[in-house]
Amino acid sequence: MNKLRIIPLGGLGEVGKNMMVIEYGQDAIIIDSGLMFPESDMLGVDFIIPDWQYLRDKFDRVQAIIITHGHEDHIGALGHLMKEVNAPICATPLTQGLVESKLRRTGIGRVELRTISPREEFQVGPFRIEPFHVCHSIPDAVGLGIETPVGLIVHSGDYKLDHTPVAGGPPDFAKLAEFSARGVLALLADSTNADKPGWTASEAVIDEGLDKVFREAPGRVIVASFASLISRIQQVINAAQRNRRRVAIVGRTMVDNAKTAQRLGYLSFPQELVITVNDANRLPGQEVVVMTTGTQGEPLAGLGRLAADRHRSLSIRKDDTVVFSAHPIPGNEEMIYRTVNYLFQRGANVIYGPIAPVHVSGHASREELKLLLNLVRPKFLVPIHGELRHLKLHSQLAQGLGIPAENIAVVENGHVLSFDENSMTIGERVPGSYIYVDGAVVGDVGPSILRDREILSRDGFVCVTVPVDDHGRVASRPELITRGFVFLREAQWLVQATQDIVTQVVNDATFANRDEIRQAVVSALSKFLYSKTRRRPVVFAVITRPFPSP
Amino acid sequence: MNKLRIIPLGGLGEVGKNMMVIEYGQDAIIIDSGLMFPESDMLGVDFIIPDWQYLRDKFDRVQAIIITHGHEDHIGALGHLMKEVNAPICATPLTQGLVESKLRRTGIGRVELRTISPREEFQVGPFRIEPFHVCHSIPDAVGLGIETPVGLIVHSGDYKLDHTPVAGGPPDFAKLAEFSARGVLALLADSTNADKPGWTASEAVIDEGLDKVFREAPGRVIVASFASLISRIQQVINAAQRNRRRVAIVGRTMVDNAKTAQRLGYLSFPQELVITVNDANRLPGQEVVVMTTGTQGEPLAGLGRLAADRHRSLSIRKDDTVVFSAHPIPGNEEMIYRTVNYLFQRGANVIYGPIAPVHVSGHASREELKLLLNLVRPKFLVPIHGELRHLKLHSQLAQGLGIPAENIAVVENGHVLSFDENSMTIGERVPGSYIYVDGAVVGDVGPSILRDREILSRDGFVCVTVPVDDHGRVASRPELITRGFVFLREAQWLVQATQDIVTQVVNDATFANRDEIRQAVVSALSKFLYSKTRRRPVVFAVITRPFPSP
Repeated sequence: MNKLRIIPLGGLGEVGKNMMVIEYGQDAIIIDSGLMFPESDMLGVDFIIPDWQYLRDKFDRVQAIIITHGHEDHIGALGHLMKEVNAPICATPLTQGLVESKLRRTGIGRVELRTISPREEFQVGPFRIEPFHVCHSIPDAVGLGIETPVGLIVHSGDYKLDHTPVAGGPPDFAKLAEFSARGVLALLADSTNADKPGWTASEAVIDEGLDKVFREAPGRVIVASFASLISRIQQVINAAQRNRRRVAIVGRTMVDNAKTAQRLGYLSFPQELVITVNDANRLPGQEVVVMTTGTQGEPLAGLGRLAADRHRSLSIRKDDTVVFSAHPIPGNEEMIYRTVNYLFQRGANVIYGPIAPVHVSGHASREELKLLLNLVRPKFLVPIHGELRHLKLHSQLAQGLGIPAENIAVVENGHVLSFDENSMTIGERVPGSYIYVDGAVVGDVGPSILRDREILSRDGFVCVTVPVDDHGRVASRPELITRGFVFLREAQWLVQATQDIVTQVVNDATFANRDEIRQAVVSALSKFLYSKTRRRPVVFAVITRPFPSP
Repeated sequence: MNKLRIIPLGGLGEVGKNMMVIEYGQDAIIIDSGLMFPESDMLGVDFIIPDWQYLRDKFDRVQAIIITHGHEDHIGALGHLMKEVNAPICATPLTQGLVESKLRRTGIGRVELRTISPREEFQVGPFRIEPFHVCHSIPDAVGLGIETPVGLIVHSGDYKLDHTPVAGGPPDFAKLAEFSARGVLALLADSTNADKPGWTASEAVIDEGLDKVFREAPGRVIVASFASLISRIQQVINAAQRNRRRVAIVGRTMVDNAKTAQRLGYLSFPQELVITVNDANRLPGQEVVVMTTGTQGEPLAGLGRLAADRHRSLSIRKDDTVVFSAHPIPGNEEMIYRTVNYLFQRGANVIYGPIAPVHVSGHASREELKLLLNLVRPKFLVPIHGELRHLKLHSQLAQGLGIPAENIAVVENGHVLSFDENSMTIGERVPGSYIYVDGAVVGDVGPSILRDREILSRDGFVCVTVPVDDHGRVASRPELITRGFVFLREAQWLVQATQDIVTQVVNDATFANRDEIRQAVVSALSKFLYSKTRRRPVVFAVITRPFPSP
């Protein structure tokens, strides 16, 4: 008998680039295909997509790509994936709209998009898919019930159990209970906040936080959030309306997303409430809210430009109030606080962090994870969406509820899980690592290139050009080129000492060929520079023939 | 009449490298002289010390250097400062012990150290100094009352208002009240936690947190903290004793600090309670606690080595419990969580973040800042120790208590504040920026070097060597050397195209000299590489004469 195989290709062992393959026999579906932003030591990398090498010789088996919601970490790699796979993308209307804009921007045409809806089942190969409504920080998010030949799999998507969300109503608890009644073989559940105690606050608490700020701010309020946080845009617009302010949305992606959401009915407001940035500049500050991006300290986003006073159409005024409506993503704190400091420096008041309730997470905290487990009562648990620490803590928590440790698979990308009606086994590991996108090139930047960049970033390089005559002797002073090492104009003693050392090394020995000279120079120079500076720049030498004197 | 001048040289506009000069007439004192760790874009920098250029022509006026407590951000630059200034260092016994080890490590001799004590006044030039006991995460910390010819200045040091600290008793509220009764001209107060609502939890809450972990852990407990957190070492030892475990301290600096603290009576325990790491490896896990460093994800500290399984004397076992007893310093999150993930991967259980109360901050939160202000009731406030955002929020909070905005100086390093009996003015700005220490060299790394390192770290470099004959024509194929750009062996097409472009550029035009050829090659190659890869490596060219064929 065939086994069901679940292969996570992204999002397990990391936060971002979520992607999962589910296979039975010759049929496969893909769930999500997102991107991830590089960590600070992935130097020069623009972003990262999943490694789908495993699928390369079986793309024709893929019957559908099902997207749980429209955030970048779930749709961001579609532009690259759809160059290789030919299958319909199934998504709810808002998600579909966001996918369409994304594919348009990356220049991909002719992709079949199928609209799906919560509680509307559909069949894909041997899989009966039952999307169900979940709450997250974007509307139209779904989890998936997947009825397979070996049993029912439940995929939570990204979720929180919000009783009072901005739109779409509370999560479909009834559907979860129904799954439970039918018997759930395995639950694949979001672990992002498995280290957060308690219950994630409802989106509703933000309304009060925003109201207080909008009421008390002496001038304009500039609210920054993520471009894809459609619910937050709605909340800001609602709070502006309650406080007699009008809203200008600034920034291409946020404007695009807002338009898509409005067209599809996921964002609603009286048309006169939303104004252009020019109007915002003309109106009295107390009547204005500006909504933009840049909460993670990105220098090119709206807030980053405002902080550096390099924004095309806005600049910070003394009585502005800037609101960071987002949590810091770990790793971004330094850039975020730098932006906060610059905004303060320009005279704005800045509201960030725990001082005011202007942001809540979109992911379930520990008490919600417990409730989901007890609602769904799965035989097996696969913690998904999180770094290893999140997956481990999710597993510990589930064991505390009575799920045996051997029924929980804490695995990272690439581990193949096989299921039949009664068992789960962790099998071989397929590639599941990083594909770096750097500039126009996908995948050619690997660990060795990053290691070189790391070395260069620490101590720079030194290149010495040595003119050597036909007798193997230095013909004129060697020339030095350096970057990132020391400031040569202030270190003439070092330049001269270097020239002396190099000349001595070449003249004091006999070498068989240019390459031997080169190696001797590099080795002597590296040692010399380290002894004088305790730095290890990349050193290389070019041995040239002397030019005739001019 | 003379004015009192306060010149902050470090710690205002940043967290770290605290240093302040107080002058009256020809006399000056220095308070603290600390270091700071580099931010992630200060590539290759080891650490940063204050810029004390302002003092260079008046070091002879400095009558004393007074240290508030023994943390690196208050004593870490003394090794460099004491090479230039000849004045006694005044510190409480534990602080003095830590300063001594520091100076010994940096090879500085013949420094006069004077012991000071809370409530024991001493005179330095025109200043009458009254140290007073404050609570912080290290024993023997003081704040300073400074009676000057124009009025009383109060410097809070780093403090929290802890009613149940580990050692030394609660802060000297009575002294603060006495200052208030005498009338305080200016308060210089710690702002580090000015964005933290409420009241910082007492060190006492950690005891319970540690007890629970030590009681329930199935094997060894490895507690990581800062080497200078003497109070935490005491708490861990106490909790170990209560739970019948013995403690091995691992790591040179922590062992040194513990010895200094024990010798001076600031750390006390029955001698048999503390064991060697070899004993720790022999004893049953349930009887052992290991204390070490590395809570900030530093790869070379104890935890970092354990996470990478490169520790000299320990390795992680399946039933180990690792406790992070420290908050992440902003900017370190990524490395910290990576360490957490690796420790989980090796099979340990890891306790970090908000899941268990195993760490509290050493700095006062917002309600404590308010209490200090109302206890001291200063005429003027100078928020110190914090990034601009902390200083601004501290100022806002003080205004909420009725201190007029014009009586608060939110200034960054280098701004000279002048005081007479009734007024405070913000004067000129003297240098107060970063001095980078990189390897053996202090201060020669500046912004342009860092910018070069940044560019190199993003896209690496490409060096092309072009042999040009006497007729100005390319004599053989140009050679390419690259690092951090692309992996040349997998990009032969790019190598060949590059050689073709370079050859064409040189052969198709007539150049007056080598330098013109070089410039033309660099310009054409940069454009070509960007068009093909969307990357901008550092490009340079070496024009050589052809070698005779071998």
